[in-house]
Amino acid sequence: MTDFSITRTAFHIPDGVIYLDGNSLGPVPLAAEQRAREVIGREWGEMLITAWNRAGWMDMPRRVGDRIARLIGAAPGTVVMGDTLSIKVYQALAAALDLRPDRKVVLSDSGNFPTDLYMAQGLLRSLNRGHELRVVAPEEVEDAISEDVAAVMLTEVDYRTGRMHDMAALTRKAHEVGALTLWDLAHSAGALPVDLAGAGADFATGCTYKYLNGGPGAPAFIYIRPDLAEQVEPALSGWLGHEAPFAFDPDYRPGRGIERMRVGTPPVIQLAILDAALDVWDGVDMHDLRRRSIELTERFIAGVEGECPGLALVSPRDPARRGSQVSFAFEEGYAAMQALISRGVIGDFRAPDVMRFGFAPLYVGEDDVDRAVRILAEIIATSGWDKPEFRRRSAVT
Amino acid sequence: MTDFSITRTAFHIPDGVIYLDGNSLGPVPLAAEQRAREVIGREWGEMLITAWNRAGWMDMPRRVGDRIARLIGAAPGTVVMGDTLSIKVYQALAAALDLRPDRKVVLSDSGNFPTDLYMAQGLLRSLNRGHELRVVAPEEVEDAISEDVAAVMLTEVDYRTGRMHDMAALTRKAHEVGALTLWDLAHSAGALPVDLAGAGADFATGCTYKYLNGGPGAPAFIYIRPDLAEQVEPALSGWLGHEAPFAFDPDYRPGRGIERMRVGTPPVIQLAILDAALDVWDGVDMHDLRRRSIELTERFIAGVEGECPGLALVSPRDPARRGSQVSFAFEEGYAAMQALISRGVIGDFRAPDVMRFGFAPLYVGEDDVDRAVRILAEIIATSGWDKPEFRRRSAVT
Repeated sequence: MTDFSITRTAFHIPDGVIYLDGNSLGPVPLAAEQRAREVIGREWGEMLITAWNRAGWMDMPRRVGDRIARLIGAAPGTVVMGDTLSIKVYQALAAALDLRPDRKVVLSDSGNFPTDLYMAQGLLRSLNRGHELRVVAPEEVEDAISEDVAAVMLTEVDYRTGRMHDMAALTRKAHEVGALTLWDLAHSAGALPVDLAGAGADFATGCTYKYLNGGPGAPAFIYIRPDLAEQVEPALSGWLGHEAPFAFDPDYRPGRGIERMRVGTPPVIQLAILDAALDVWDGVDMHDLRRRSIELTERFIAGVEGECPGLALVSPRDPARRGSQVSFAFEEGYAAMQALISRGVIGDFRAPDVMRFGFAPLYVGEDDVDRAVRILAEIIATSGWDKPEFRRRSAVT
Repeated sequence: MTDFSITRTAFHIPDGVIYLDGNSLGPVPLAAEQRAREVIGREWGEMLITAWNRAGWMDMPRRVGDRIARLIGAAPGTVVMGDTLSIKVYQALAAALDLRPDRKVVLSDSGNFPTDLYMAQGLLRSLNRGHELRVVAPEEVEDAISEDVAAVMLTEVDYRTGRMHDMAALTRKAHEVGALTLWDLAHSAGALPVDLAGAGADFATGCTYKYLNGGPGAPAFIYIRPDLAEQVEPALSGWLGHEAPFAFDPDYRPGRGIERMRVGTPPVIQLAILDAALDVWDGVDMHDLRRRSIELTERFIAGVEGECPGLALVSPRDPARRGSQVSFAFEEGYAAMQALISRGVIGDFRAPDVMRFGFAPLYVGEDDVDRAVRILAEIIATSGWDKPEFRRRSAVT
């Protein structure tokens, strides 16, 4: 049984702060500061260039990838770190389209994070081969998976609403019609159990600065289904994805399996900090995490709906269809969030009117939930926002 | 007049080490350790998500880019940081080909760093429009710039030999026939004066962990000639290159000028460390740096040629055609470099037989040069490598 009173002590949370924005940027793990000193002072400082081998820098993208693999239901050797989520989405989508040369549709939904859609737009424009990016409403995705679809590109948990797709069912449907799937786990990795291998997902990508607490600009990860990896001819064919980077061959030859998704020199310092941040997961069972996450989000929803009239839940009410965040629409949401932050309750706001609250069980407890509800209720009452004219449903679904 | 005895005190060089590998990974600037503590402890730790605005994280790619712009002869607002050199090469080349849709040749040379060639290969394969990557010998580049060339893609200073291209002359020649130029400044930025604006270069990219001492995996930079930037439709169209990233529009619209070359979330911690590493340049005149670099490399060549028979200079003898490194071919080069490193003289080795020594005037002095020569001479004499059979010319030119 995971002890969340212990995981909480692994983080620095400033005095008086209730941090409900770990779905945007996780807080500092205490181990991270120590590790930064080591990698800068002892490794870079003392070993200089020799640290690439002596301190194991060159292998970090794979080693850290293996640690993340465990959290997302992937086998060792199928995940590698590097770049940003945007770049990893580009690599995965380019590979998927390469594997389905006769199909011209990329299917996504309007709940996907914009950068995924933007990267797809840029790729399709470059390819200039008549591809279409077909964007449907989240609830229409399943029916839209048809035989002309090359790749279904989705973010599992919606960044605004927390609505969660059924990865296994949609992947099954995609495979039935011969399409590949690309799952963005930005709001899943470290937030809930993910079972990439069980679902048969083809590609997955994610970032590590949210629920994985790797720090601002921590590197992204990419997964390829092991039996597909060797078929992928990388679009971003950088030297560290080469079969033998230090042979300095004039021609690119892809490295083994997922290694070919490496591109340039890895961000060693950020990787080291992320590596330290992952230590806290060693004792965490992902199903305990999920149970705890649901307790916290249910408690928050009940509290807000009981004490804060005017806020309308935009997250799914069924916890099984929700990630580890809760979003409420509120006409004065922007001002209310500013007031919350000034009182130490940090969530965030997403246009047009969504107040977003993330619940990371590693460091958020029931007391935090209760205090956040109380402060929010006070703000609403003292601002006069409990009057009926502020009760309006959001356009976001 | 730049005082290099002062710049030297800004770095940590381990006791007994003569560091001649700053052309691969620069040493730790003392200010970097302090800045890492601040960005992790005070900014990430205390400000959490609000640091994106309050600590100025969101603007760092441009602000740090402006500091590098000064060192490479670029106007403020024309350089932006992010990703890796490989990614930046891809962006620049994709943009160049987009601007010359009727031309199908990318001209490069066999002295280019492999990742530049690999990224071009991956891009051309993806585009699938009949492009050719034409690779000629370095001395044949000028004659090979013909009217079918879309882009001339070169690394200014050869990573193995230190041979330097004439950026202004080759750019002029390219423009005469309507081609664009893409300069990789990996071994130029911080090593010698670069004048991108004066040369009329169209695109430039570079890394910051060599002569700019940004640390392992420090982010890369990209430059676009200001009057071209607004014509570029980015291939890697990430959300932070969007005109309004936080509007979360479904469609990509490129940001203003060079900002559109941003892709995903910036590596804030590595950027902060790089920013601190750039402080040392504030008092440095690039022409003083060049003078000093030539003094050091000339002294090293004279010393090695006088005391180490068997080593053949593969760098240009004319300092005006050489970067800030010196390479010697030697049949037992690999073993000799290992012996040097074990005695504290750190250079590196590049296949097949090249011993590479970088001279960063910020922290390398004449005493270092003399001591490195003496130790190398001792190693050669005691190993019996001064016998005539070890005197063979390298195949690398």
